[in-house]
Amino acid sequence: MNIVCLDMEGVLVPEIWIAFAEKTGIPEFKKTTRDEPDYDKLMKYRIALLKEHGLGLKEVQDVIAGIDPMDGAKEFLDELRSITQVIILSDTFEQFASPLMKKLGWPTIFCNTLEVNGNEITGYQMRVKDSKKTTVKALQSIGFETIASGDSFNDLGMIQASKAGFLFKSTDAIKAAHPEIPAYETYDELLAAIKRSL
Amino acid sequence: MNIVCLDMEGVLVPEIWIAFAEKTGIPEFKKTTRDEPDYDKLMKYRIALLKEHGLGLKEVQDVIAGIDPMDGAKEFLDELRSITQVIILSDTFEQFASPLMKKLGWPTIFCNTLEVNGNEITGYQMRVKDSKKTTVKALQSIGFETIASGDSFNDLGMIQASKAGFLFKSTDAIKAAHPEIPAYETYDELLAAIKRSL
Repeated sequence: MNIVCLDMEGVLVPEIWIAFAEKTGIPEFKKTTRDEPDYDKLMKYRIALLKEHGLGLKEVQDVIAGIDPMDGAKEFLDELRSITQVIILSDTFEQFASPLMKKLGWPTIFCNTLEVNGNEITGYQMRVKDSKKTTVKALQSIGFETIASGDSFNDLGMIQASKAGFLFKSTDAIKAAHPEIPAYETYDELLAAIKRSL
Repeated sequence: MNIVCLDMEGVLVPEIWIAFAEKTGIPEFKKTTRDEPDYDKLMKYRIALLKEHGLGLKEVQDVIAGIDPMDGAKEFLDELRSITQVIILSDTFEQFASPLMKKLGWPTIFCNTLEVNGNEITGYQMRVKDSKKTTVKALQSIGFETIASGDSFNDLGMIQASKAGFLFKSTDAIKAAHPEIPAYETYDELLAAIKRSL
């Protein structure tokens, strides 16, 4: 049985923190996993920056409420879900993902949990270490063949551990460093590649 | 992070093989996991019975096309998916499940694969041994807390392995044998119990 594991931000919806940087006018929030591969370092940086500016969960959620999926993302996901099983594997947090999942028709998402005190984001619980690759390995251990796609450093593990894997709307640097991974820019290309791998 | 694992047949949709028995007028197809806990024995019996009557995949799929989810099942699932992650854990087969998942709004389902030669069902590939319990354990190994519900013998493993588990529309015999497992008959009761466990 096949299962497709998809990254969320940059693949199905725009990067939440880039939208947040633009909305708040604080460019320091623009840093993403594309720039900082160490997610723990990145999240600690973001939490400190939020605190410094007196911003909390509500302010982030208000920005997320205004984010729409990328053009064609829902149609792509709808068709994919009608032919195989799909799970979104994201390093985001439950408290952020919910309004985006609603707009995408409630696909299943495996992500993480924020620690919140009042409106202050105080920390976070990662579901498991190296979650994308570890999750793909766990799915394989219960009889799934996995196919994976993402745009960033933290997607390489699940892509390389899968029977087929694709970069999607990735950076030139990541594509150049991994010429062995097919890279696509449109949902039509990605859907066709996944269908060939099923 | 929480995930709810739900049985499909008897919980969200009627038993496929009982519908098939009624439609074909062959009562021998009425046997389910409620009557025969050994799923391998049960499936071999069904496959031999299909062959004996000259029936194949198409005939089963035609019956499934006419099956609707149980009253309130989609509404229950829609609400549950808006508050937590949900996976349907079923011993059914991809080739049977698809039209039912469509009617339920494409929830994620982990099930098995039939081996088919032309229209003849020749065998099946189980995704993994003792799949419901094994899958729940694998989800726990990647940081999920699981909540499970089902109606039958083959659901007891995942129910007992989870932090909370519920029988739903089960038989008197199973309920009597497992008085320690809360048992519910309506989606409202089950939803409320799941919410309390989150």
